[in-house]
Amino acid sequence: MRRLDDMTVLEELEPTECWRLISTQGIGRVAFVVDGEPAVLPVNFTVLNDLVVFRTALGSAFDVLVREAEVAFEVDQADPAYHSGWSVVGRGTARGLEGAIAQVDLERLSLRPWGLATPPGWIGVHLWEVTGRRVVQVVRAGGSGAG
Amino acid sequence: MRRLDDMTVLEELEPTECWRLISTQGIGRVAFVVDGEPAVLPVNFTVLNDLVVFRTALGSAFDVLVREAEVAFEVDQADPAYHSGWSVVGRGTARGLEGAIAQVDLERLSLRPWGLATPPGWIGVHLWEVTGRRVVQVVRAGGSGAG
Repeated sequence: MRRLDDMTVLEELEPTECWRLISTQGIGRVAFVVDGEPAVLPVNFTVLNDLVVFRTALGSAFDVLVREAEVAFEVDQADPAYHSGWSVVGRGTARGLEGAIAQVDLERLSLRPWGLATPPGWIGVHLWEVTGRRVVQVVRAGGSGAG
Repeated sequence: MRRLDDMTVLEELEPTECWRLISTQGIGRVAFVVDGEPAVLPVNFTVLNDLVVFRTALGSAFDVLVREAEVAFEVDQADPAYHSGWSVVGRGTARGLEGAIAQVDLERLSLRPWGLATPPGWIGVHLWEVTGRRVVQVVRAGGSGAG
């Protein structure tokens, strides 16, 4: 934990807490590389075992790209009014799940697509590194501000 | 506009609307490439002219990387309860602003850093492409569900 100024504390988060926070969210962002250039897309995801799972449109450019790709994954939550929030960033490997997980188990996931045509592709990301941080505002004893 | 199912409509957004939506947000995600691998970080940003501007810790790894880099930039807002939301993704070039914009004008921006040590670096991203989409649930006339 590190104090940035009188009122702001930055806390580095342990992997266990990072995973807990990931699992509180439904929308994350997947960053990937296309022809050497960075790209990023939001995904509606869930956590299955140690995988971040999301749907794609099977055969779409994104689907094809992330079936065997290194990706970065990000979730965050911020409260601008209180200037507090946290973010978690993971690095991992994405792959298609169709051969690895039974279709019936994939369909059972609470993963309704956002604006995707059928048929769906199923992608799982094994995150081999997660890091996170939380910024909180602390209340000074006897301080003049509201809490 | 494309109807995905009985209740869901996907709308592709014009660049003007994408920029309007970007300017409603304070937190975005910057994707970039490090040694060929994808990386992503959340940033506290504002819009100045046609630039997405954020602060870095001057001399940090991120700061050094994005001073002359191709990046992707993402903002979104979702209402999971109503399964509605939008996202905007931009592609652009990042560069340091210290030589291009007067320090006094940079300091005037409403950009308070989240967990950054001083001194700050100032990065501007010129987005040469923005695309966005909005997913909305439509209410069917005479439908059985609540609106």
